[in-house]
Amino acid sequence: MHFEKLSSIARFKAACPYLKTTTTTMLRSLCTTASARYPNLSQLTEKASGCPIMGPTLAARSSQLQARSYASVAGNAEIQHLHRNTDMFNPKAPGIEKCPHAAAARRAAEMADALADSQKKKAATAATVEKPAVADQAKPFSYEKFYATELEKKHQDKSYRYFNNINRLANKFPVAHTGATEEEVTVWCANDYLGMGKNPVVLDTIHRTLDKYGHGAGGTRNIAGNGAMHLSLEQEVATLHRKEAALVFSSCYVANDATLSTLGSKLPGCVYFSDSMNHASMIQGMRHSGAKKEIFKHNDMEDLEMKLRQYPKETPKIIAFESVYSMCGSVGPIEKICDLAEQYGALTFLDEVHAVGMYGPRGAGVAEHLDWEAQKRAGQSPDTIKGSVMDRVDIITGTLGKAYGAVGGYIAGSTDFVDMIRSYAPGFIFTTSLPPATVAGAQASVAYQKEYLGDRRLQQLNARTLKSRLAELDIPVIPGPSHIVPVLVGDAALAKAASDSLLTDHGIYVQSINYPTVARGEERLRITPTPGHTVEQTMRMVAAVDETFTRLGIRRLKDWKAVGGRAGVGSPDAKPVSPIWTDEQLGLLNNTSPVQLKDGEKAIVDARAGRIAQERFKRLLGPVQKPVYHPPSLFNPTPLAIPAAIAAAA
Amino acid sequence: MHFEKLSSIARFKAACPYLKTTTTTMLRSLCTTASARYPNLSQLTEKASGCPIMGPTLAARSSQLQARSYASVAGNAEIQHLHRNTDMFNPKAPGIEKCPHAAAARRAAEMADALADSQKKKAATAATVEKPAVADQAKPFSYEKFYATELEKKHQDKSYRYFNNINRLANKFPVAHTGATEEEVTVWCANDYLGMGKNPVVLDTIHRTLDKYGHGAGGTRNIAGNGAMHLSLEQEVATLHRKEAALVFSSCYVANDATLSTLGSKLPGCVYFSDSMNHASMIQGMRHSGAKKEIFKHNDMEDLEMKLRQYPKETPKIIAFESVYSMCGSVGPIEKICDLAEQYGALTFLDEVHAVGMYGPRGAGVAEHLDWEAQKRAGQSPDTIKGSVMDRVDIITGTLGKAYGAVGGYIAGSTDFVDMIRSYAPGFIFTTSLPPATVAGAQASVAYQKEYLGDRRLQQLNARTLKSRLAELDIPVIPGPSHIVPVLVGDAALAKAASDSLLTDHGIYVQSINYPTVARGEERLRITPTPGHTVEQTMRMVAAVDETFTRLGIRRLKDWKAVGGRAGVGSPDAKPVSPIWTDEQLGLLNNTSPVQLKDGEKAIVDARAGRIAQERFKRLLGPVQKPVYHPPSLFNPTPLAIPAAIAAAA
Repeated sequence: MHFEKLSSIARFKAACPYLKTTTTTMLRSLCTTASARYPNLSQLTEKASGCPIMGPTLAARSSQLQARSYASVAGNAEIQHLHRNTDMFNPKAPGIEKCPHAAAARRAAEMADALADSQKKKAATAATVEKPAVADQAKPFSYEKFYATELEKKHQDKSYRYFNNINRLANKFPVAHTGATEEEVTVWCANDYLGMGKNPVVLDTIHRTLDKYGHGAGGTRNIAGNGAMHLSLEQEVATLHRKEAALVFSSCYVANDATLSTLGSKLPGCVYFSDSMNHASMIQGMRHSGAKKEIFKHNDMEDLEMKLRQYPKETPKIIAFESVYSMCGSVGPIEKICDLAEQYGALTFLDEVHAVGMYGPRGAGVAEHLDWEAQKRAGQSPDTIKGSVMDRVDIITGTLGKAYGAVGGYIAGSTDFVDMIRSYAPGFIFTTSLPPATVAGAQASVAYQKEYLGDRRLQQLNARTLKSRLAELDIPVIPGPSHIVPVLVGDAALAKAASDSLLTDHGIYVQSINYPTVARGEERLRITPTPGHTVEQTMRMVAAVDETFTRLGIRRLKDWKAVGGRAGVGSPDAKPVSPIWTDEQLGLLNNTSPVQLKDGEKAIVDARAGRIAQERFKRLLGPVQKPVYHPPSLFNPTPLAIPAAIAAAA
Repeated sequence: MHFEKLSSIARFKAACPYLKTTTTTMLRSLCTTASARYPNLSQLTEKASGCPIMGPTLAARSSQLQARSYASVAGNAEIQHLHRNTDMFNPKAPGIEKCPHAAAARRAAEMADALADSQKKKAATAATVEKPAVADQAKPFSYEKFYATELEKKHQDKSYRYFNNINRLANKFPVAHTGATEEEVTVWCANDYLGMGKNPVVLDTIHRTLDKYGHGAGGTRNIAGNGAMHLSLEQEVATLHRKEAALVFSSCYVANDATLSTLGSKLPGCVYFSDSMNHASMIQGMRHSGAKKEIFKHNDMEDLEMKLRQYPKETPKIIAFESVYSMCGSVGPIEKICDLAEQYGALTFLDEVHAVGMYGPRGAGVAEHLDWEAQKRAGQSPDTIKGSVMDRVDIITGTLGKAYGAVGGYIAGSTDFVDMIRSYAPGFIFTTSLPPATVAGAQASVAYQKEYLGDRRLQQLNARTLKSRLAELDIPVIPGPSHIVPVLVGDAALAKAASDSLLTDHGIYVQSINYPTVARGEERLRITPTPGHTVEQTMRMVAAVDETFTRLGIRRLKDWKAVGGRAGVGSPDAKPVSPIWTDEQLGLLNNTSPVQLKDGEKAIVDARAGRIAQERFKRLLGPVQKPVYHPPSLFNPTPLAIPAAIAAAA
């Protein structure tokens, strides 16, 4: 309910002198955080007691206060007397415009009255249902009460989610505005990892596709919704992974769910072997299949082998795992899993969702990265490299919604495997396909990143920089070899408070990650540096985290060491982690690592990779007559990117 | 495999004089249909025997032919001698350009060799697996063989799907090009029911949102992927259905699946009551919930009541049903279901996927349509109309991908219900949200259709016209009160042949609907007239169906009558069906029904409804400085639409 009330309160801002000068994010924080002095009041209500108009009323009613929000207070009948204007609740009354508080109070009152009504109604329902069943056996189930109870559970265990209103601005990446268009924050937790959502080649492709083919696909893939753009994207993705075929879904959630549930339900006696940290979409897919499932300890090959060994070799088995685990940044031992799969006759199902676009010479993911030289040598050839890690993985799934900055997901594998999923998975068959413009944009992004590795190099360098700076300040980062920077907080309330404070006090948006996404006690801030974050933004970020840790008394690395470590932070037996991208691959050994780019150089790179990406659409959209590239100055005030020389070497 | 081969064959067209003059659709038909004379050859191979170059080789090898495609024949080593040019397989050899057949043959040969390799490999695998298990117990399961077997089943029962390559052109709606950009067909089976996918207001909104917010949302709704556009669309949809809240999903498949699986698994002892014709997404959702399910006969209230009666009133129950059933065009008895739900204490879950945008004064669906006058009087007020059918339905789900011409789906209901699904459904929580531009486009479409009922009126009139014309020719249309025009064929092979022939011989695209989407023996052509189909296109369509029925010997209405009827066609006890849209609502009684519009009138209507839709985005995108409306002549050569006077009255 709070998130609803907040949106109403935000609307009062124009009228109330106090609310006007308070940011939406601050308001959200105030109305969802309990006052320290009066635990049953929100901080907003507490603040309102200092208001010359609301204050006296609040004081008069303090003994009766039960609800926790400004709005519910404002809703009491007494508010009608606040301005001593009997007509104030009539919006058409003369003079109403002159009173800045009147309109706000009126709307708050209406809302609060509605709230009170609904609470009364709920209380009545509750009373009815709580009557002993003996008295009246024929009462229907109270669905509304059930919903309220389920929500209350979420509030109780602090897992209720308040969505922040974040609008990422294409021309100010990585800056976004909040619910108030004039209030800007720097985004540090998006999964548009490479900023491809604002890439000019991508946007240009979408604009042109929209003009030619309109918006929606108009049907399922089988009925009127299968076009050249869909087929072209699938070919692009198959080529990316050097697999025979690929299939695009509404999302990778759907791809994982549909594929695993179809495979597991069709393969006779199939057993899943699932990493304990697998994503919800895979867990759902395996569950929906009805197949047996063995969960092995995260990245623990001994445990996996022990579990595989229990089944006859001829039993169909699927090992489902990820390359980069999103919430901790750890990386699956792909090669070892392929070895075990071979030995025990299992299929390998690898989710590269948090890796595609960012690892490998062409951005095909960690499996590609592991054979850097061979994959680089093979260039843009679609042919499988026999015996390579990517070849040994049977099924690769990836997303178009993260590093590729679009939406949608896919699977890649053998022709018959893909054709079987295409033919049997209801989640693929019975749904409207993605719009042609969306898939064209996604393909432009994949094609661009196939050609240009500057973005992913710079992302890795920025991640390294951020990790070093945080380490210097003893801020605990969960160790990992990837681009994800998880800062351990270790407490649900503190993690939320830190996230709120960063947003409100520093204009920095990092969502806190709480249970059930991570284990209790392992709550964290998950930071995702991109190539678009400047040195200045990074320094501000680090200082803000440092200040917040101090102010809120959040544990530092030394504190975790003192208690024996947690979530891989400060453990006495921790081994150093080598990053996936080596110093050599990043150009740190031969001095070709990215430096500050001169204005316009990024545009040249864009134009080069962009030309290649645009080539894909010549047959359908015609030649690019005049590419609509935004000037680079609009992208980033002080752009950091790879010099053209490095891009050319890629 | 065939669909892969075809795409290769299509690429040879430029080189081979025969292939060049053959349409892609014809080729598809030829290479997927067995020759009548030689059942183990495709028609394409048969035709190739008439080719001066391929013919002799084919004849020489006729005894050995096993594969069914032109490509596999062309791949044999003998082809190397065909042109007596030893260098023909070297694309750089001088003179190669002069030989039109060389390049095509070379590519065909490469492909066929690859195919032969893979077939050898498969045969080897199969041989291994088919060894008696006793000899070697430690052989792993053969996954590839399993996929091939599953695909073979689809081929055997004729349910294997070949996707047509259809690219709907925004400026030529309802015309699309096929895989060959110069080959155009008229689309008669898309679910972009109102042509909103090419609506200028929608496209303009998307262009502007893309420029401001870029492409992808960049995260889940909880992490960086929740913006003002998402909240705004949800408010638009909640208002549309006059419900407290709404929630947007990747698709309505996901919305149905996630909502039903969450509800059923959380409500203690929940029982589903599911209409036998429910969509796959609902069936999956109920299955995934693990809850008990009772299936009642399609639209049979006696059967539903009998099943409801078996459970105590306090047992949580959900009646899941649709308003317009997509494949037959029948309509659920919403009011009666609400009565039963009230009586037996059940929740009502109504899927309005094939109705939103098209029924009701504001396009909210059949539930709104049933209270036409009250709903029309209430105008754009968001308030519930107490006791109205739409109010009595607890949960409404809809799509943004059909009449709204976009992509995505949603649920609408009470605040706590929606908040509970938002808080618990993995399919909502753990997925990247839709791009801001996509949701803005969808909202523009919903807002537009809320204001303007000309499109849906004209759609209904066009559906009536089409049904009448078909009836005059004794072509069997499955009777129904909606906009869907299902033409009964009653045989899988005939339905596919009719669809193929319409495409190849008449340039008309209507997908055949076969088992398992419809019951065996009820195969059909599902025709969806839109407001964009002109009188001329309709007349051509009717003539083409008539010709095809005659040529292929498909049964007419009289034939079905003679055998006692099928699928509601020609049944002796059939009652006349009243359309949902009455004559009065269509303006047929007061002479305000649509007539041919003068050039520019549709643009005026667009501008009017468009202005209102665009108002929604003023805060985020700024005022529309210069709306980019395509001139109406680009839309439709002879546009049919509602005169401005009628639109103004709406």
